Amino acid sequence: MIDELSALRRIEERFHKASKGVELGIGDDAAAVRFDTDKLVLATTDSQVEDVHFVKSLISPAELARKAVAVSISDVGAMGGVPRFILASVGFSEKEDEGYLDELISGFISSLREFKVELIGGNLSSSNKLFLDITALGEVEPNLMVKRKGANPGDLIFVSGTLGDSALGLKILQNKEMGDGYEFLINRHLRPLPRLALGRELAVEQLATSMIDVSDGLVLDLERITSQQGVGGRIEFLQIPTSKEYDECIHQFSDDGSYPALSGGEDYELLFTSPPEGRGRIGEISKNLNIRITEIGYVTEDAVVQVLNKNAEEASLRQRGFVHFNN
Amino acid sequence: MIDELSALRRIEERFHKASKGVELGIGDDAAAVRFDTDKLVLATTDSQVEDVHFVKSLISPAELARKAVAVSISDVGAMGGVPRFILASVGFSEKEDEGYLDELISGFISSLREFKVELIGGNLSSSNKLFLDITALGEVEPNLMVKRKGANPGDLIFVSGTLGDSALGLKILQNKEMGDGYEFLINRHLRPLPRLALGRELAVEQLATSMIDVSDGLVLDLERITSQQGVGGRIEFLQIPTSKEYDECIHQFSDDGSYPALSGGEDYELLFTSPPEGRGRIGEISKNLNIRITEIGYVTEDAVVQVLNKNAEEASLRQRGFVHFNN
Repeated sequence: MIDELSALRRIEERFHKASKGVELGIGDDAAAVRFDTDKLVLATTDSQVEDVHFVKSLISPAELARKAVAVSISDVGAMGGVPRFILASVGFSEKEDEGYLDELISGFISSLREFKVELIGGNLSSSNKLFLDITALGEVEPNLMVKRKGANPGDLIFVSGTLGDSALGLKILQNKEMGDGYEFLINRHLRPLPRLALGRELAVEQLATSMIDVSDGLVLDLERITSQQGVGGRIEFLQIPTSKEYDECIHQFSDDGSYPALSGGEDYELLFTSPPEGRGRIGEISKNLNIRITEIGYVTEDAVVQVLNKNAEEASLRQRGFVHFNN
Repeated sequence: MIDELSALRRIEERFHKASKGVELGIGDDAAAVRFDTDKLVLATTDSQVEDVHFVKSLISPAELARKAVAVSISDVGAMGGVPRFILASVGFSEKEDEGYLDELISGFISSLREFKVELIGGNLSSSNKLFLDITALGEVEPNLMVKRKGANPGDLIFVSGTLGDSALGLKILQNKEMGDGYEFLINRHLRPLPRLALGRELAVEQLATSMIDVSDGLVLDLERITSQQGVGGRIEFLQIPTSKEYDECIHQFSDDGSYPALSGGEDYELLFTSPPEGRGRIGEISKNLNIRITEIGYVTEDAVVQVLNKNAEEASLRQRGFVHFNN
């Protein structure tokens, strides 16, 4: 059983150090920080709840802590901003041993280094199910901020990286009969990579008219950016970028009628729209950052999201991004 | 069963309005806000977890939402700051009906009005136990911020309001055999009042050398402010302010050896230290704000917290603020 105070003290010892922008860190009633005076402060919060967002047997505590941070700062990146600070609320069962908590803390620490953010606040509660609630604070220049709203008919629709890997990786993790050789897909699920540099670059060059990170599936997240503007989108199924690893094993899962590349969540790739004249520059950014960026369709005046199959026919979309194909 | 998207839409509809300082509210990947450029940004997070911090049968959803907000902004007030924005992460069981969620939302809305803060972000997760995790953002002038650290030997120790009411109110709520007539104490538990105006006034007049809100009991929280500075404190049991209602019924609970006024949590009164020359001005502030402020002891060089009983003998303190008296 873990004494909350001693756990907090251990956390404070490992985090308590003054640094640029942090006037007062962990250990007081509130943290006190400075942001650049000419920027907007971005704030977002996201939770990972045991047996809802993750199963403890399938993810290590360090991976879990890192993922919770990654998911939250991904939202700052999707605004074109730079994440700066993190507050972490952890609900922790007293059944856990100290080793688990130490690994969780180690995961937080290494993720802060990886993502160049600082933990400035936290809260440890008892809870029968583990939960991690991360608030991320960042900043962005007012004129560079990229909202979900802003896509115009005729804008091209782009997505970074490959889609469906995370959902497939989760299916593989859940299927105990599958052997080795799926590290790439599993890793895409356990260790998502927020596209901070890309989001920032698109914002700085003012190339994106709207942007979101793909957390709940391509179709659903595309609906989110188009519906805010009262427009729609048309994307081609065959253009949706998938990884070699995805292509090699998707047939083993296709009998359930779901298409992870369309409806699978947690890829945290960036989905954004850009006027056609941005196409060339986006290609250069893709090369410079060595991040695949794929044009998958365009924004329409008609306020619906359509997915065209290989025969250029509209595929029927089930609710919430789940897709059923007839081909 | 509640569809998460429709719930979120309902929340957005009820909160989505532009206002001073909010460039972008709920409904995007992150909110974007402005703070006064010459101030520090204060950030703090606090959780309320079902069956840990509250029992659903004893608190209404509206009271629960309000209390979660109150507890979190109380930390901003205890820095001498002004709370501005709230992010709310709610873990919500699908067993709940929509009525419960609506009442929770109503509680949030009225608390935002009561405390003059704005909800700028949120997250709704499924969770078998209800939890509310509130991040509060506020601001304070760098030279006016009051930390936990800063108490000097010889400083007087003050506390606002009365202590132990909340803990006693909870005991009464839990005891089904107790009749009516305890509304004051129960209300102190269910509807805590963060001392925002007092905290701000003490900061603006630079009267407090250290300050904390009493969330976990007087002794423990006094240890928190003294230990940060490497000093101690000596307080007199008979000076500890208690309410008439507390005095009238504490005898019914004293057989368990605990003293809620010393060790009971969740009063959210302000505990602060001040040089002796501040005494007069503190008395005036008490009158002006109509808030009882009581001098209960003084800061010592000796780095321990002592509680003196009516014979001026030191009472033995059990761990974590629980106190055992021999008189």
